[in-house]
Amino acid sequence: MAADSEVPAAGADAPAALDPVIHAPARLRIMASLAGLADGDTIKFPRLQKVLGMTGGNLITHIRKLEGAGYVRSEKAGRTTTLSLTDSGRAAFHAYRQSLRDLLGSD
Amino acid sequence: MAADSEVPAAGADAPAALDPVIHAPARLRIMASLAGLADGDTIKFPRLQKVLGMTGGNLITHIRKLEGAGYVRSEKAGRTTTLSLTDSGRAAFHAYRQSLRDLLGSD
Repeated sequence: MAADSEVPAAGADAPAALDPVIHAPARLRIMASLAGLADGDTIKFPRLQKVLGMTGGNLITHIRKLEGAGYVRSEKAGRTTTLSLTDSGRAAFHAYRQSLRDLLGSD
Repeated sequence: MAADSEVPAAGADAPAALDPVIHAPARLRIMASLAGLADGDTIKFPRLQKVLGMTGGNLITHIRKLEGAGYVRSEKAGRTTTLSLTDSGRAAFHAYRQSLRDLLGSD
């Protein structure tokens, strides 16, 4: 019977809790996409919808949640809505990614 | 107004869906801890419970779900239950971690 092993750091000491606003898979994909934009760049709602392969209704629901958390900014110009990360959204995404890395450890 | 930008790969093309059995935060921490054990090593249930700071009931619920997916093996010897990843659990965790890396991209 193998010895009862010590659990290495990954997963053991409670890393910063994974931000539930970001962790939900659909919102994680939205945040990852917006985080990939250069600072100051925006993306049109229909474009993001197409890229992520989500329904408009589903995307709006998650965008509202992310706006409510102050992570995403949506601006309307005429009939066009553009989306981008706020500074706090970018900071939250980086912190989330770091706690995930801490949790998952490396190979 | 910044140009409507192309969304870089991260988050765009749908990476392998994040395995929902693993993605739930509590189960993600359990899998990360068990994945940190050397192949063939096991950990006692109370030890894992203490390390993760979870209630016994909560841990059992998630362990059952992971066993149901074939990812975790629990063995009873007398009054002691020991836990470890199955081969398919280890493979599923590595695949999950890779799709997360694909999604999150690097800095």
